[in-house]
Amino acid sequence: MGELLYEGKAKKLFSTKDPNVLLVQYKDTATAFNGEKKEVLEGKGALNNKITSYFFDLLAENQIPSHFLERLSTLEQLVKRVTIVPLEVVVRNITAGSFAKRLGLEEGKPLPFPIVEFYYKDDNLGDPLILEDHIYALEITSEDIVSQMKKQALQINKILYEHMEQRGIRLVDFKLEFGLDQNEEVLLADEISPDTCRFWDLKSGDKLDKDRFRRNLGNVIEAYQEIDKRLGGQ
Amino acid sequence: MGELLYEGKAKKLFSTKDPNVLLVQYKDTATAFNGEKKEVLEGKGALNNKITSYFFDLLAENQIPSHFLERLSTLEQLVKRVTIVPLEVVVRNITAGSFAKRLGLEEGKPLPFPIVEFYYKDDNLGDPLILEDHIYALEITSEDIVSQMKKQALQINKILYEHMEQRGIRLVDFKLEFGLDQNEEVLLADEISPDTCRFWDLKSGDKLDKDRFRRNLGNVIEAYQEIDKRLGGQ
Repeated sequence: MGELLYEGKAKKLFSTKDPNVLLVQYKDTATAFNGEKKEVLEGKGALNNKITSYFFDLLAENQIPSHFLERLSTLEQLVKRVTIVPLEVVVRNITAGSFAKRLGLEEGKPLPFPIVEFYYKDDNLGDPLILEDHIYALEITSEDIVSQMKKQALQINKILYEHMEQRGIRLVDFKLEFGLDQNEEVLLADEISPDTCRFWDLKSGDKLDKDRFRRNLGNVIEAYQEIDKRLGGQ
Repeated sequence: MGELLYEGKAKKLFSTKDPNVLLVQYKDTATAFNGEKKEVLEGKGALNNKITSYFFDLLAENQIPSHFLERLSTLEQLVKRVTIVPLEVVVRNITAGSFAKRLGLEEGKPLPFPIVEFYYKDDNLGDPLILEDHIYALEITSEDIVSQMKKQALQINKILYEHMEQRGIRLVDFKLEFGLDQNEEVLLADEISPDTCRFWDLKSGDKLDKDRFRRNLGNVIEAYQEIDKRLGGQ
């Protein structure tokens, strides 16, 4: 394994012999509320590595480019080196979480169209919601890149929403991150897992995602396992 | 005086004999932080009535329609009855206040272009920042009305910015409210005063607005009087 380049809340990033390839190692740490709540959930890293690899493969089959190269082992995957755009891109299909709270809405109401939101990635500021005009005024990234991220986010939403619906799961909302490769191409990065998506069982309404951890609902790992199972995992 | 229809933090609204005309009475109450900080500042109501009337007249001369009809007395003005769109429209020329704080920016930096923001008017929610897509998804108002409000807000910014600059004042940012009259025409409403604008003296940088109250800087009324004076008030 190469040099540790970065350690985040849920993953470590290492260099490899190829300067354009990085190794991601998933951790079992679960955090919420900007790191205030923290716990080790045995098996989470392996499940998120597996589920993320599954989704990135699915998206590649649907012409959505990502940084993903291959899953190496239980906890590890290889990815292309990208420069992360410091924006979290959130797509919402149904009212839930911070969105419902901020605007005084009941959770679980379908939105008339999917909403794309940008949050400025900055732990010290608590990742604030940001307008597109803020992004351009602060020169965080260009209009062209924002427009590509938005377009890809909506395409990804369509693919994942239908895929999950066929497996008895409602894709409520999810968070994406994008990066730029050395040719300035916009590539989906980070992960897609129950840590970054809200998944509700279509029949029971049960939450099968990180809200079980955030809200102390118990059976967190069991919920992640259920998602893996619905995706055909053994 | 007619029936009291509404009492807000800074103004009372009464009916008149004409169902399409309301009487606004300005109060001396100053509030900040969603009503948490509250004080009576003698003379504020009269100054805000005078300054608002001045600005609405100036805007009318520049083809910006508003609800304003005429100033009746020291504390009173007559306005057209409108249904207020529950959105606060903020225009920013320079970083300051909540905007600077949320995004971790120093105050006083000129923005490369004026930024228009919408906040959902709801005291219980603390008037949260809202995206245009949120407005449409929640059916708060239509795309056409949002687009008219945005266009008018930028026109108003241009007029007020130049007018104040000629009088040695920097218009840093300001908040507008709009209403719909019985023909669904979008009319500027509420007030334009040191309660709703940030005004900085061009030479000294002194704050001549409600930030003197919010931040306990003293000489609040003197600052409002200075704005009135620069506008030619006696």
